[in-house]
Parts: sequence; C-alpha cells; structure tokens
Amino acid sequence: MSRFTVEEFRTLMRDHLPVAVAMGVEPLEFGAGYAELRLPYHDDLLRPGGTVNGPALMTLADIAMYAAVFTAIGRAELAVTTSLTINFLRKPPRADVIAKARMLKLGKRLAVGEVELYSEGDAEMVAHVTATYSIPPDRSR
Amino acid sequence: MSRFTVEEFRTLMRDHLPVAVAMGVEPLEFGAGYAELRLPYHDDLLRPGGTVNGPALMTLADIAMYAAVFTAIGRAELAVTTSLTINFLRKPPRADVIAKARMLKLGKRLAVGEVELYSEGDAEMVAHVTATYSIPPDRSR
Amino acid sequence: MSRFTVEEFRTLMRDHLPVAVAMGVEPLEFGAGYAELRLPYHDDLLRPGGTVNGPALMTLADIAMYAAVFTAIGRAELAVTTSLTINFLRKPPRADVIAKARMLKLGKRLAVGEVELYSEGDAEMVAHVTATYSIPPDRSR
Amino acid sequence: MSRFTVEEFRTLMRDHLPVAVAMGVEPLEFGAGYAELRLPYHDDLLRPGGTVNGPALMTLADIAMYAAVFTAIGRAELAVTTSLTINFLRKPPRADVIAKARMLKLGKRLAVGEVELYSEGDAEMVAHVTATYSIPPDRSR
Repeated sequence: MSRFTVEEFRTLMRDHLPVAVAMGVEPLEFGAGYAELRLPYHDDLLRPGGTVNGPALMTLADIAMYAAVFTAIGRAELAVTTSLTINFLRKPPRADVIAKARMLKLGKRLAVGEVELYSEGDAEMVAHVTATYSIPPDRSR
Repeated sequence: MSRFTVEEFRTLMRDHLPVAVAMGVEPLEFGAGYAELRLPYHDDLLRPGGTVNGPALMTLADIAMYAAVFTAIGRAELAVTTSLTINFLRKPPRADVIAKARMLKLGKRLAVGEVELYSEGDAEMVAHVTATYSIPPDRSR
Repeated sequence: MSRFTVEEFRTLMRDHLPVAVAMGVEPLEFGAGYAELRLPYHDDLLRPGGTVNGPALMTLADIAMYAAVFTAIGRAELAVTTSLTINFLRKPPRADVIAKARMLKLGKRLAVGEVELYSEGDAEMVAHVTATYSIPPDRSR
Repeated sequence: MSRFTVEEFRTLMRDHLPVAVAMGVEPLEFGAGYAELRLPYHDDLLRPGGTVNGPALMTLADIAMYAAVFTAIGRAELAVTTSLTINFLRKPPRADVIAKARMLKLGKRLAVGEVELYSEGDAEMVAHVTATYSIPPDRSR
C-alpha cells in the first residue's frame, strides 16, 4: 500500500515544489513504490521541431521518482537525486505527458527506480529514465 | 573559433526556447565546442533543504550542451538530445549556477559532450553531466 | 519473429566474440527485439564480498543488447554500443546470471534497449542496464 | 597524497580481483583521488570491426575507479559500484588502453568519479565514464 497519498503529494508540491506547480504537474495515481503523474501540455513546453522539450521530460521524471520514493517509505522531503539517466526515444508530440515511476530497489541509503514517459493516448514510450535517490538517515517515518 | 555567437544564441533562445527565457538563462562565453551559460538564482528554483532543484540543473546543462553543439557545427536547431546522465555531487546553495559545456566528440551523426556545473564563486563542482546529441542530416551549415 | 537465431548467435560468438566465449556466455532464447542469455557462474567472476563482479554483469548486458539488436534487424555485426548505463541493485550471489534484453526503440540510426539482470532462480533484479547502439548505415539486411 | 600505493593495488588485484589479473591490467600511477592504469592489448580483446571491445573498456574503467577510491580513502575492499555510465567516443585501435580516473566527489557514503580512456599514444579520448561507488560504513581506515 502506498505510504503517501496523491492528496498529500499535491499539498507537498504546493508548499515545497514551486517548479512542479509552475509546470502544472498533477499526481494521478500512487501505489506502493509506484507513482503516475501528468504534465499538461502547453505551448511553453515546445522546442524547435514542434515537440515537447527534453528538460520538461527530465523534470517530470525526477518529480515522479521523488513521489515514488514517498509512496515506498513515506514522507522523505530531504531525499535527493544522486544520479539520473534519460534516454529519449521518440519525439513527443503536442500532448500531455504521462510519467510512470516504479522502484527497482529500496535500500537503507539508496533507492533506484525507473520512469517510463508516454504521450497521453499513445502506447509507445517517448523516454526512459533511471534515477537514484539518496535517502536521508534522519527522515521522518 | 566558435561557429555561433552569444548574441545569436540569445536571439535563438528568444525565438525558440521559451523554457530558457522563462528561467532567465544567459549565454556568457562561447568558443569552438565550448559554451558557458549562467542560470540566475531566484527563489522559484528552491527545493526542500534550501538548495537549487535538480531539474533546474538538468535544464541548464541541456541548454548548455545544445549551445556547445552550435559552437562546433553552426546553427543546428533540430539537433536533439538522445541521452543525458547527471551526477549530483554537492547541494547547490542559493546562488547563480554556471554551466561549462564542452564537446568530447563530434561525429557526423552524434555529438557527445560533458557539462560541469558550479555555484557562482565556488570552485567545487555541484553536478556533472554527459549528454549525446543527434545531429540532423539536413542541418544548415 | 526474431531475425536471428540462438544457433546463429552461437556461431557468431565463436567466430567474432572471444570475450563472450571465454566467459562461457550462452544464448538461451530469442524473440523479435528480445534476447535472453546466461552467464554461468565460476569462481573467477568473484570480487571481494563474495559476489559476482560488476564488469561481468556489464559484459553480459552488453552482449545481450548486441544480440537483441540482431533479433530486431538481422545480422549487424558492426553495430556498436554508443552509451551504456548500469545501476547495480543487489549483490549477486554465487550463481548463474540471466540477462533479459529488449528493445525500447529501433530507429534507422540508433537502437535503445534495456537489460534486466537476475541471479538464476531469484525474482529480484540484481542490475538494470540501458544501452544505445549505433546501427551501421551499410549493414546487410 | 595517495592513501594506497601501486604496489599495494597490485597485491590486492592478485589476491582478490581475478578478472583484473586475467586481463593483465597494470596500475601505473596513483595520486590522491587519482589512478592511472593500463590494459595491455591482446587479440582476445577484439570485436567485429577490429577494435577493442566495449566490455573491456568498461571493465578497465571500473577497476580504475575502484583504485581511485582507494587512493582517496585507503583500503576499502568492500566499496561497490552503484552505477556507471559509459559513452563510447571513438573506435579504439589495436593498442594498449590507458585509464585515468579521478574523484569528482568524496562523500561519507558515496564517491563519484570520472574516467577518461585513451589508446596509448593518442590524445583523443576513446571513451568517457562516470561512476558512483558506495563506501562501506565499516571500511577499515
């Protein structure tokens, strides 16, 4: 069962993640070690070629992994990304982007996960991310 | 010698990279296969812990590599990132972030580079990025 | 349907991949864009801590992706890895290692895939790999 | 000053790193947070195209980072790679390969470094690696 709710994450975003709020990121569904979020399309996300820009995808993926860590261990505000790798697979069209993050490993000190990114309504992945989070020793449980 | 000027990149950003403009990214210095840019600090960049958020660093690094590709091959608007790996090294304090991007390899189809990120005025790297760009076959030279 | 058979890959390894032969790598099952291989355990694979060494896992993963590219596009001997990222998740015990590689994207110039590595008989992934291959323009189809 | 000598690493390899010995890896020069090693060329390293195979480069890079960690913190046999990213830049010809590893960050729990790989006698980098090592809490100092 998820240890953090969509509603709790929405509050956390509002209080602590201005970048997520500014982009309009919406948490959709959380499970234990799983988080699904949406990035609504808007024209400021475009880059030359008429596709959604790469940094927007990386930002969404990072927030999705952050959420997935919370679903696994509860509120851990000070968890920080230590590394992230993204592979861009297809040019994302002008559409909302959906991120599906899941934990691959949850250790005491490190959490590793992968995030699949899709354009809404399309079954082909547009980008694939793996990321590692450092879990603070003193996080509240 | 750089095949693209700071002034030309500023114009390109204004016309085609709304995300860079919104963040206030400033090109500082270009050389052949080298680009240095600044991300001015503002409070919207904060994340829990009082440090600059990771996505802001990734965004800056990606734009810096994009610029470095231009300095090496000239305007190549449709060059796209194919993969990017970031390692976060130290928590960036509330300060401007400087990106220094340089090409490691410039092939016909792929360009690979690395980006070092620093907090202004501090010699210790805050994050290290490697990224690969796909170069369009039909780019104007 | 796979465009390359397990038997063909065994022959290719024998003729062209001495490193794979020396390690005893065995192709197990191929599908279209999918390849499963085994690395038999032997004591030379150990590292301090009594676990299988990381380079052995990376080597197996790289060979598995190479095979997966063949299953998708047919023999493409000159396909080369352009980048590879591995996340080590758990310490692999003294046991055979199984690699499951599948394509995430097959473009004209680049193929991107992911490889999951398991210790034989254990459902928990020991390492996760993403890799990009450059596809030669003149490969035989 | 290096906290581990070339001679000590040679002994460690002989006792604990059979893969390094089998490949003939030679430590060349150590500094504080810096290690330079050589992989002598031999025909078993070839892959189709007549170049040194990628796994050999990854293996050398991983061993070089392991050595660099030792130079920085002393013997830490149980340090383990947590992630590694390699970008292949140029096809390495039939020649010895030199690895130059240096620490980018040395934390209490994680060490991050980069490794540059060269063909002996050639100034152009053939591959670039970043890697993260987890430092055991109980390592002997």
